[in-house]
Amino acid sequence: MATTSPVPLLKDELDIVIPTIRNLDFLEMWRPFFQPYHLIIVQDGDPSKTIKVPEGFDYELYNRNDINRILGPKASCISFKDSACRCFGYMVSKKKYIYTIDDDCFVAKDPSGKDINALEQHIKNLLSPSTPFFFNTLYDPYRAGADFVRGYPFSLRGGVPTAVSHGLWLNIPDYDAPTQLVKPLERNTRYVDAIMTIPKGTLFPMCGMNLAFNRELIGPAMYFGLMGDGQPIGRYDDMWAGWCTKVICDHLDWGVKTGLPYIWHSKASNPFVNLKKEYKGIYWQEELIPFFQSVTLPKDCNTVQKCYLELSKQVKAKLGKVDEYFNKLADAMVTWIEAWDELNPSGANSSELPDGALK
Amino acid sequence: MATTSPVPLLKDELDIVIPTIRNLDFLEMWRPFFQPYHLIIVQDGDPSKTIKVPEGFDYELYNRNDINRILGPKASCISFKDSACRCFGYMVSKKKYIYTIDDDCFVAKDPSGKDINALEQHIKNLLSPSTPFFFNTLYDPYRAGADFVRGYPFSLRGGVPTAVSHGLWLNIPDYDAPTQLVKPLERNTRYVDAIMTIPKGTLFPMCGMNLAFNRELIGPAMYFGLMGDGQPIGRYDDMWAGWCTKVICDHLDWGVKTGLPYIWHSKASNPFVNLKKEYKGIYWQEELIPFFQSVTLPKDCNTVQKCYLELSKQVKAKLGKVDEYFNKLADAMVTWIEAWDELNPSGANSSELPDGALK
Repeated sequence: MATTSPVPLLKDELDIVIPTIRNLDFLEMWRPFFQPYHLIIVQDGDPSKTIKVPEGFDYELYNRNDINRILGPKASCISFKDSACRCFGYMVSKKKYIYTIDDDCFVAKDPSGKDINALEQHIKNLLSPSTPFFFNTLYDPYRAGADFVRGYPFSLRGGVPTAVSHGLWLNIPDYDAPTQLVKPLERNTRYVDAIMTIPKGTLFPMCGMNLAFNRELIGPAMYFGLMGDGQPIGRYDDMWAGWCTKVICDHLDWGVKTGLPYIWHSKASNPFVNLKKEYKGIYWQEELIPFFQSVTLPKDCNTVQKCYLELSKQVKAKLGKVDEYFNKLADAMVTWIEAWDELNPSGANSSELPDGALK
Repeated sequence: MATTSPVPLLKDELDIVIPTIRNLDFLEMWRPFFQPYHLIIVQDGDPSKTIKVPEGFDYELYNRNDINRILGPKASCISFKDSACRCFGYMVSKKKYIYTIDDDCFVAKDPSGKDINALEQHIKNLLSPSTPFFFNTLYDPYRAGADFVRGYPFSLRGGVPTAVSHGLWLNIPDYDAPTQLVKPLERNTRYVDAIMTIPKGTLFPMCGMNLAFNRELIGPAMYFGLMGDGQPIGRYDDMWAGWCTKVICDHLDWGVKTGLPYIWHSKASNPFVNLKKEYKGIYWQEELIPFFQSVTLPKDCNTVQKCYLELSKQVKAKLGKVDEYFNKLADAMVTWIEAWDELNPSGANSSELPDGALK
């Protein structure tokens, strides 16, 4: 099951999106797994800097000048000096699936010592159904050697389409600044050999480090918000996207999986810097979680775009009073959808690329 | 963490409940782990048969005659010729915790080849909190080497009391008859090194083979229903208890965990016999799951007993039309609570044993 296929799965249907501020030497380690795929590199920070990409990779690269040129005034919805800028890559992709990975993530090994092809496992997760309506105690029932256990309703065994595959991290766990400060030496060494559907109605902290999704299904909800330069908050980009995405997947009866594959997260970011970025998020999230837990979307919200615009309204109405920032964010959510629809007109030729893309 | 403690955990606060129809030779393998604890053996079937218990175990044993003598007319709520009779053991126990295990379950080995002390792991699960309100992607945050990940609200990190610990099975998976028939050779060989809280609002198929719970918290809801002799259904005893228990734990803000520990399930039961027992359950469960998913308990149901009696009313009102059996079951649920309260008067001396217990 875990061997590399002779023809890589979904070779022409998946883009790998990488936000970065540095040369992409980390790709060397991923070469056996990523080289067949197309990369979309979103360069963050100073656009005059040249990002070196190792030989032999097929890629397009966008810096801030490109983003501004392509989106015009709508570029305001794309964060600057924050890895949240990666969602621009989701928008300009024309593929059905996206895999996104941070440039400090390396190939992990499974307990037998074999290199883990993270992308292949994500693709398997996305191509097999999810089971959000009832919990299976033997985890993903579609994996080899597993099935639905006694007591699992047969009518639910077909599952629903999987929209998101959330992978995990060995070595440096994805902790917030306070936990980093308290447990500077903690490393994740536990390889949990499981994939599972996060049940309907349950929110989770979605990390953008090692994440794949069906762009055709859920792409327009994968907005990573306003973070970094000029914003009062950072490091909540993926969380925000995760909460919005989960609520919409629940509404549209799509599944979100978490678990395998692991990547090797090499380096903890600076906890003091992180604390500065996070501290508002740490108290805001106490209001955000109850908000997202209580969101209901009306029945006529039957597309992701409609759901997302409705959500932006509720953000403004309910979270605007938490902080003025959420009014700005709600507006940016609308701008994001407008930009998405402009770059992704329905029925557009999927080989079309926006003007100004650097090949 | 997994070593046997010099003084066994909860030695005087936990009973091991075993339903059986045969000599308990299987206890030999469990001796290092079970011998310090008190056993409650519930003998099913012919009460004139003598069940041999290996030397050196401290136990009490109840057969059908004992059950009839102790409960009188209320004995009607205890199933006969079905392992559902085990719940009588929960009722006569005076301990705070229960572990129940089937007599075809043996000691499993972890991936390092070490014998798994299943009971010790269950106790750890029960003594550490649960996190039903938000999903932690690194599984149980209270385990060594794990914690809450970024984006997990701090206000929820204290967790809630754990009421149930549901363990899993290596070798023979807990499949229903149709799956057994279709996959006779499937074995569970995947050791998933995880414990997790089943989120609030999510139902799961609770298996009674390897199960521990806090009797003081949830005991009165651990009724295994009417199965076996004279009943139209079997093999749904633990499922029924699990659905009732989960709904009540959700209402009272208690947690249910699943995952480790594994036991070695030695022998698949006969799928043809199972099919006969299960077939009504297989179509009834299609109505039961939506029923339990939509159950709401009023606020004044602030004890398990009150919750359970309210649930019995709703069973009668909503499931009585599915089949007459559910009216009978609803009545038995009431009888069960009456019997429970009779044997467990509040404030009773916890060393008191019911009359007629064979020591």
